[in-house]
Amino acid sequence: MLAGRNLLSPSDFTAEELDELFALADDIIDRPDQYRDICRGKLLATLFFEPSTRTRLSFEAAMHRLGGSVFGFSDAGSSSATKGETVEDTIRMISCYADVAVMRHHIEGAPQAAALYTAIPLINAGDGGHQHPTQTLTDLYTIRTAKGRLHDLTIGLCGDLKFGRTVHSLIEAMGRYTGITFYCISPRELVLPDYVISQMDKNPNITYTQVERMEDCLDKLDVLYMTRVQGERFADKDEYLRLRDCYILDPAKMALAKEDTIVLHPLPRVNEITPEIDADARAYYFTQAQYGMYVRMALLVKLLGAEDPDSQVGGAKWHRRPHAQLVQSENPDHTCPNPKCITNAEPGLPRRFEKLGSGWRCRYCDSQLGR
Amino acid sequence: MLAGRNLLSPSDFTAEELDELFALADDIIDRPDQYRDICRGKLLATLFFEPSTRTRLSFEAAMHRLGGSVFGFSDAGSSSATKGETVEDTIRMISCYADVAVMRHHIEGAPQAAALYTAIPLINAGDGGHQHPTQTLTDLYTIRTAKGRLHDLTIGLCGDLKFGRTVHSLIEAMGRYTGITFYCISPRELVLPDYVISQMDKNPNITYTQVERMEDCLDKLDVLYMTRVQGERFADKDEYLRLRDCYILDPAKMALAKEDTIVLHPLPRVNEITPEIDADARAYYFTQAQYGMYVRMALLVKLLGAEDPDSQVGGAKWHRRPHAQLVQSENPDHTCPNPKCITNAEPGLPRRFEKLGSGWRCRYCDSQLGR
Amino acid sequence: MLAGRNLLSPSDFTAEELDELFALADDIIDRPDQYRDICRGKLLATLFFEPSTRTRLSFEAAMHRLGGSVFGFSDAGSSSATKGETVEDTIRMISCYADVAVMRHHIEGAPQAAALYTAIPLINAGDGGHQHPTQTLTDLYTIRTAKGRLHDLTIGLCGDLKFGRTVHSLIEAMGRYTGITFYCISPRELVLPDYVISQMDKNPNITYTQVERMEDCLDKLDVLYMTRVQGERFADKDEYLRLRDCYILDPAKMALAKEDTIVLHPLPRVNEITPEIDADARAYYFTQAQYGMYVRMALLVKLLGAEDPDSQVGGAKWHRRPHAQLVQSENPDHTCPNPKCITNAEPGLPRRFEKLGSGWRCRYCDSQLGR
Repeated sequence: MLAGRNLLSPSDFTAEELDELFALADDIIDRPDQYRDICRGKLLATLFFEPSTRTRLSFEAAMHRLGGSVFGFSDAGSSSATKGETVEDTIRMISCYADVAVMRHHIEGAPQAAALYTAIPLINAGDGGHQHPTQTLTDLYTIRTAKGRLHDLTIGLCGDLKFGRTVHSLIEAMGRYTGITFYCISPRELVLPDYVISQMDKNPNITYTQVERMEDCLDKLDVLYMTRVQGERFADKDEYLRLRDCYILDPAKMALAKEDTIVLHPLPRVNEITPEIDADARAYYFTQAQYGMYVRMALLVKLLGAEDPDSQVGGAKWHRRPHAQLVQSENPDHTCPNPKCITNAEPGLPRRFEKLGSGWRCRYCDSQLGR
Repeated sequence: MLAGRNLLSPSDFTAEELDELFALADDIIDRPDQYRDICRGKLLATLFFEPSTRTRLSFEAAMHRLGGSVFGFSDAGSSSATKGETVEDTIRMISCYADVAVMRHHIEGAPQAAALYTAIPLINAGDGGHQHPTQTLTDLYTIRTAKGRLHDLTIGLCGDLKFGRTVHSLIEAMGRYTGITFYCISPRELVLPDYVISQMDKNPNITYTQVERMEDCLDKLDVLYMTRVQGERFADKDEYLRLRDCYILDPAKMALAKEDTIVLHPLPRVNEITPEIDADARAYYFTQAQYGMYVRMALLVKLLGAEDPDSQVGGAKWHRRPHAQLVQSENPDHTCPNPKCITNAEPGLPRRFEKLGSGWRCRYCDSQLGR
Repeated sequence: MLAGRNLLSPSDFTAEELDELFALADDIIDRPDQYRDICRGKLLATLFFEPSTRTRLSFEAAMHRLGGSVFGFSDAGSSSATKGETVEDTIRMISCYADVAVMRHHIEGAPQAAALYTAIPLINAGDGGHQHPTQTLTDLYTIRTAKGRLHDLTIGLCGDLKFGRTVHSLIEAMGRYTGITFYCISPRELVLPDYVISQMDKNPNITYTQVERMEDCLDKLDVLYMTRVQGERFADKDEYLRLRDCYILDPAKMALAKEDTIVLHPLPRVNEITPEIDADARAYYFTQAQYGMYVRMALLVKLLGAEDPDSQVGGAKWHRRPHAQLVQSENPDHTCPNPKCITNAEPGLPRRFEKLGSGWRCRYCDSQLGR
């Protein structure tokens, strides 16, 4: 049951819940008029502590097309955050005004912290380099809709695999389906981090190969997922210049791909896909952006329980709400090792760790302690 | 009759008008669905020349929940103000587009100046250190709703009483009711300004005591109104550090309060109320924030005359509107002594003074001349 | 047929299409309630890469008063443009979400570039010093409505005629009507550019005289169009100070004008029209601002084809849209000479030139090559 739930990470939803969400997205695409007033009277708060036009506009368009309304802020400079207000107090205030909230923050774990105190469904729109679940849901929906399935697929992941948040998340999400093969295409300096490799090693659903050149695998791919190689990630500028052109998808490389390969990109693209590719039927990145609005529409409907006219989900409840349970830390000496974690920015926040093997994992930002 | 009126200062409304407003807020809380379309087709303009997320979001949520729409700007950098446009011209333009406007400005008296030229109801959302009437109305509503009355109350005001705009305004507003006792809790450096003390001295409704420690009066208070003590206000850093902990409300101090004391704070709070207090039934600051939305909903309905379907209040009237009367200064030699007053920023604005004892008071920012 | 069209320049509409637009604006002013839901369910995207409060608020109010919704961004710092995304990719994304878009950009030709790739109607809200068509349409509507006609008029253009975009555009638009006389009132340093003089020389509809003082022609004018003389345009500060007061419209000068002269100004005004003029019945600049909202309302209705309930105009079409035709440059050696042209900021954009006499004109920014 998705009504009243939060979405902080793609793994918050089971595979069945994802199917339910995607089936609704299909129906919204087929019969948009059925949904044009389904969220009438409902308010979405967009809490963008760091700017992100694409994601914000996608959510706003989604809510409007459901008949709902939107308010919020688009960067932290214009919010009380500059006065030192915690995200917990912000979400408690927002729970007084809105029915559902979307939060984007540069500090990892911030939406997870807010989720402890929210009285309304909360969606993570991106927290630092940690998670961006609606991007992953959009990627899955695009693959599932273009290919008809999410199992038995060969997927090329290309570009910056080291820092690429959307790539790590896609690997984790696809890992729930059987028969997945990844070709990991990147310069040596930007290979997947060890913890991701290790996640893949342990997962019998996944087979993977690391290559340095797109040409080495293009003829095998059902899906090619492109990301930007950013010059600033390279210590060695010559290395960057040498490898940069290997990661530009142009008609010459596209000619090596299969007839039914689809090309995805979370956008914005700068030069890593040349404009001639846009006219190729296999270019799916703009369709992917469009599906992103429908996936967010389905998500808002489900989290608000809007298909049920008696739904009690939402904010602005006049009565005194029960206060959030304060969660005790497992071990008062544990401190999250990630300097970018919300618990190091807001010392009043209870630290929470869960056991992971012989060590612990921070419940906000997933960083590991003591292993 | 509130339709078509402006709200620049809490004293613009009589006590009877406040009762009418509060009774409507009660009804909106009890029967929200009755009001969900009452402002349909109406447009609120949010003119925030300085940012203030909390106040802005509270107004926007209020208008949306009445079925209305919102547009505007959230800081002056993105407005024509940077080209030197006066607030008078801004409000004349806005009167062409919107039905009601909310203005927040760093220059004192700016909303009062705009009110000379507006053709639509105008609400002051805060002008410099001068007024913030909807905060005061929210504070009054919270006290009246939690305590059942606004007379015969003992109220502790704690923190920065020297610069605390909301405190000065609450004193003035409560001064209309009989049997009010204030405990003014602050460091010596941050006591109430002389003009406020003098206002209280002349008002038979008010008794007051100045103390330095919360512990000295907590057991007597019906209401405790907390504000932030800001380090930057202190010349002497050691003084600040010495006194700062006296003004933090924690469970130890809370234990000294009465069973039915309520704790208010205009928010955002930083550290002056510890998070453990949030779970105490006497913590009313989040309920206060929620009431703020309902008070603003009632205010918008009343100023727009929205309960009357034939209401003529609003903008976008196609005919040529009569031009504002230019008001002549009583004495052409008078200049407002306040360097932050709007009349010193916009020399074309007519200066207006009214007699106050043997001197004069500036009609925009209330500063006194020649006494 | 205006449904599905773009508006990049005033000359995109024929004189008949303008009549159709203005007749609709008349009807919206007369019967606003007929139009209050005509755009219900439609979404306007406001893409303001540079801020412009007046224009943006005018469009937003227009869309709301038609029952539509609005989303977007109000300056480029908060958009993906800072990551290097082209305007073409931005508009393709927006075409997935919105039904109509308004774009303002500091780079000349940017909306024209976006128009190559848009799937929804696109309105130019101002591109650098190049065009600002809805301002011109508003100016025409105001003149036509106040005077009852657009032909046989004597129009004074006053102030900064060299850089004044709205003045150049008004000259070009009025040039379609017969019997037009212009008095061009400016300092020698700010006379009309040669290409505009030349345009007027070739047009039998237009007669013009260049003068330096307002007093020399005020008694002949049907319309006086004021613009700001900006100090920063002058190399010689003394020259600026000497001439500045000639261009301030005050009651003394107004006394020289005809009884039925109307005074227009695109606003914001700073000091070039003194506040006493505001009360004069001939001051039309605030009515002009109001008409601006009605003209934009009519424009949105027409471009969306909203008068037709079966209109297919709009975005968010779920099917794969045909990709834009790439337009080939006439001559691969041609480069636009304007450093501010979009083709010099985005090298991937196809350069397009059309023949103009013995030379060429850039199709984006209208700069001339090889003459």
